[in-house]
Amino acid sequence: MMETHLQKELEELKENLLTMAALVEEAIRNAVQSLVKRDSELARKTFEGEDRINTMELAIDDMCLKLLALRQPMAADLRFITSAMKITTDLERMGDQAVNIAERAISLNQEPQIKPYIDIPRMAEIAQSMVKDVLDAFVNHDSKLARSVCERDDLVDGLNDQVFRELLTYMNSDPQTITRSIHLMIVCRCLERIADHATNIAEDVIFMLDARVIKHHADAKEEA
Amino acid sequence: MMETHLQKELEELKENLLTMAALVEEAIRNAVQSLVKRDSELARKTFEGEDRINTMELAIDDMCLKLLALRQPMAADLRFITSAMKITTDLERMGDQAVNIAERAISLNQEPQIKPYIDIPRMAEIAQSMVKDVLDAFVNHDSKLARSVCERDDLVDGLNDQVFRELLTYMNSDPQTITRSIHLMIVCRCLERIADHATNIAEDVIFMLDARVIKHHADAKEEA
Repeated sequence: MMETHLQKELEELKENLLTMAALVEEAIRNAVQSLVKRDSELARKTFEGEDRINTMELAIDDMCLKLLALRQPMAADLRFITSAMKITTDLERMGDQAVNIAERAISLNQEPQIKPYIDIPRMAEIAQSMVKDVLDAFVNHDSKLARSVCERDDLVDGLNDQVFRELLTYMNSDPQTITRSIHLMIVCRCLERIADHATNIAEDVIFMLDARVIKHHADAKEEA
Repeated sequence: MMETHLQKELEELKENLLTMAALVEEAIRNAVQSLVKRDSELARKTFEGEDRINTMELAIDDMCLKLLALRQPMAADLRFITSAMKITTDLERMGDQAVNIAERAISLNQEPQIKPYIDIPRMAEIAQSMVKDVLDAFVNHDSKLARSVCERDDLVDGLNDQVFRELLTYMNSDPQTITRSIHLMIVCRCLERIADHATNIAEDVIFMLDARVIKHHADAKEEA
């Protein structure tokens, strides 16, 4: 009976985490689209999204604490719940980064565009896919998917370096572009940070699943 | 008997957290001093320090999981242990930022210095004091100290803006300084991120202590 309760509550926890991740994805999308479409109204949607993300962090953490206190889960469930609490922190920080992007977008939208935005939306798409997939990997215990998230981090870093170098040439040839270039560099760095957070979660997922595999092997040996 | 075990283990957990925080402080100090003294050997000490920080994160998390599984703590102790697991993540990320600073220091030390470093070591000192004090606030349940950490975040942000503006004028007047200025901007941003992590912990500490206060009031009412 206790077991059934716990399993039901864990399913609810998973759904909440996926909802929170979807809000983060949306916040990133709105922030970057506000830059690409030069639409500061979308930036403001990011700020609203962040409020909801912060509220969900508190609600999920509270749910986890209740699960720990009332159900006293063991082994894999225990590790799942404490990992969930670390993941909400990462998701909340990603929301902060989306807000940073939205703030820069509002500044940039008030001035002429110095370059077409091609690599930035590409970075954003990869970062969003990382957020989605790492949460799927976590709730479905999919270490292969988690590994693919880690690999995508290199793509984001590569694009970041590329935009960075390109912006340096702008700054060098025309000092008037320096302030806007720095805004764009910070946007890229925020996307890179989001990808880093997703990678951190992915590494935890891999570690969590490997620990279980190792644990299983050890148990099997003991039983043999 | 169980209670005594748990209390002893919580003391050990506190000591480990303080040790981890001291390693983070040292990593920041080495990274920034490697820049100020133009001594890349100190930067390499930061890399070694980061290894120890990562090892401690795993060890403390493991200890927390064992405490949760074996002692099944309630209420305040439960929240303390789950908060500790979130704090190790923040401390580990601060270690990453110290490494970023050390990497930039190595690059900058290979070229002529574009300006005397005055505000950067000041930012670093404040950031270090925030790391130390927020951990003290956490282990000693000191919400006043936690609040003072939050206040210091504004000082760091203010210094960051100041250095940022100053570097912009360098870049504008001499494009040859652009790359070095960006390195320095990133160093400042890393210090600002470290202060942000400390502030995040401080907010959690305040939230944790306030929740307990509110809980106590509610309990008192029920008893009345």
